[in-house]
Amino acid sequence: MSAIERVAIIGGGVIGAGWVARFIENGIDVAIYDPAADAVAKVEAVLVNSRYAYKKLVKVQRRQEGSVTFCDSLVDAVSNAHLIVESVPERLEIKQSVYAEVERHAGRDAIIVSSTSGIMPSDLQSKMDTPERLLVAHPFNPVYLLPLVELVGGRKTSPTVIDRAKAFYSSIGMQPLLVKKEIEAFIADRLLEAIWRESLWLVKDGVATTEDIDDAVRFGFGLRYAQMGVFDTYRVAGGEAGMRHFMEQFGPCLKWPWSKLTDVPEFNEALVDLIATQSDQQSGHLSIREMERIRDDNLIGILRALKGNNWGAGKTLANHEVRLLEAANDPN
Amino acid sequence: MSAIERVAIIGGGVIGAGWVARFIENGIDVAIYDPAADAVAKVEAVLVNSRYAYKKLVKVQRRQEGSVTFCDSLVDAVSNAHLIVESVPERLEIKQSVYAEVERHAGRDAIIVSSTSGIMPSDLQSKMDTPERLLVAHPFNPVYLLPLVELVGGRKTSPTVIDRAKAFYSSIGMQPLLVKKEIEAFIADRLLEAIWRESLWLVKDGVATTEDIDDAVRFGFGLRYAQMGVFDTYRVAGGEAGMRHFMEQFGPCLKWPWSKLTDVPEFNEALVDLIATQSDQQSGHLSIREMERIRDDNLIGILRALKGNNWGAGKTLANHEVRLLEAANDPN
Repeated sequence: MSAIERVAIIGGGVIGAGWVARFIENGIDVAIYDPAADAVAKVEAVLVNSRYAYKKLVKVQRRQEGSVTFCDSLVDAVSNAHLIVESVPERLEIKQSVYAEVERHAGRDAIIVSSTSGIMPSDLQSKMDTPERLLVAHPFNPVYLLPLVELVGGRKTSPTVIDRAKAFYSSIGMQPLLVKKEIEAFIADRLLEAIWRESLWLVKDGVATTEDIDDAVRFGFGLRYAQMGVFDTYRVAGGEAGMRHFMEQFGPCLKWPWSKLTDVPEFNEALVDLIATQSDQQSGHLSIREMERIRDDNLIGILRALKGNNWGAGKTLANHEVRLLEAANDPN
Repeated sequence: MSAIERVAIIGGGVIGAGWVARFIENGIDVAIYDPAADAVAKVEAVLVNSRYAYKKLVKVQRRQEGSVTFCDSLVDAVSNAHLIVESVPERLEIKQSVYAEVERHAGRDAIIVSSTSGIMPSDLQSKMDTPERLLVAHPFNPVYLLPLVELVGGRKTSPTVIDRAKAFYSSIGMQPLLVKKEIEAFIADRLLEAIWRESLWLVKDGVATTEDIDDAVRFGFGLRYAQMGVFDTYRVAGGEAGMRHFMEQFGPCLKWPWSKLTDVPEFNEALVDLIATQSDQQSGHLSIREMERIRDDNLIGILRALKGNNWGAGKTLANHEVRLLEAANDPN
């Protein structure tokens, strides 16, 4: 079974292009296929961001980048690839037709991964001849900086393929998280969806503006979430009395009227208007490119600040990211 | 009307003690009353953490600390205070009895704030003779490092009092967020409650362990939330097509089966066992004191990393925190 040295990417949107950036930074050659007229320009724009970011993140000489080849057909892209990354729109039938074509032209050993953020891998693989080699590898934007990738196998996915994928993503500076049971939207997006719904209620009911909510996150618990997650935060809140004590105190709150979550807000034009207008007031003075640059500068600062701090069990926060990018003699 | 130079704190738990730390770091004298036998020791333990943190956060000579006086009675604590901070347990009748005693002994101009994380200020002030001077000022743990404080007025709170409170919290390096409508649990805790419920489902259903969920947060969207919040993140995700485009794409997902949020998990002994056991496996090798130190080291790194980066409109992320703590000539 071959090492993964050549990757094909089908779809050059913000996720596909982010994958290109991460792979080439790790010396892996990439062939990309996207039939859109502006695909090359869009990918190049992401590479401008990622090269700027890596240069700032890594203070020492970086390794030679892998190559990027824009292909005119899916066949050209996949025929020599060890790994094929599907990053096309979130519609099952489009994805299934891509897999059918990939199966006709890719090597038998090649692993096929989907970047889907919600569709279950058992559905993705249901019409494949070789379903055992498909899994979900769900990344987070910006793919070239955020370490997390959720790995989800379907009913027919081979455990060996999952093991290979896990080792591979670790080797390119990522934090693979194996989702233990197949479930729609996996783990992180379920949490994000929960916050999103509650946020919509708060704006709709006039309790807060979009900017108020962003401030409530980034000046408060967001600073904890960058390092601790949900449960370790509460473990500390429980103090020496422990997690059980915290649970027993906090548990009854589930029945309190503390959220609208048991209902779903009606998604209509008025709500879209309200959110879009407030968002323009909040950040309309910045272009998306400017916002991406500020975001990436902040992420770089956070990743560098956290790289030396351990959260137990040999797990170094963000070190997976930095370890492979920095030489041992980097003084920072 | 007096400037706020002397503060009384009623209740020396982790929040009350965190307030002590933040106030004295800003040169404000504090009088604290807590009848518990171990109150002094608990406050001193928090001050060990906060002094360590401020020393690391602020590389230049810091100002002279305010004084801390442990009082034997509520009367002694409040009689000379310009601001009285109530941080007693989350039970309405306890808090109301504290306010009654405060009203008998505090100066007429003194502002009274509650640290409650969920009770509505109109309920808190309902039995007061001078309800106009009470509001909620809800901080986040660790109070001495996280900038956010939610300000919530009740039906009878004077707008002048809210204005004074807002100016005061800004002056001690915090980010006051005025909650526009009174609502239980205010803003941030509603979002946290949403994530908490969904997390409990994921653990209960065996999709993820507590550690998986923490990893999904801290290696992924937590790194964005430390700076961007909910809506700006999606604004960038929408790209140049804008927030309206993003909303129209993402909106229909509200109806998808992407979370269990429309139901509330049953909170029973089995669930408490499951969470507490997994949390012990995850972090039981660290004492709470060790976890607090790692958390604070990480927060300091994040705050320092972000202090130079703007998110528009003159708002400098975490700068509210750092500005007042650092002299202008700090090279970092």
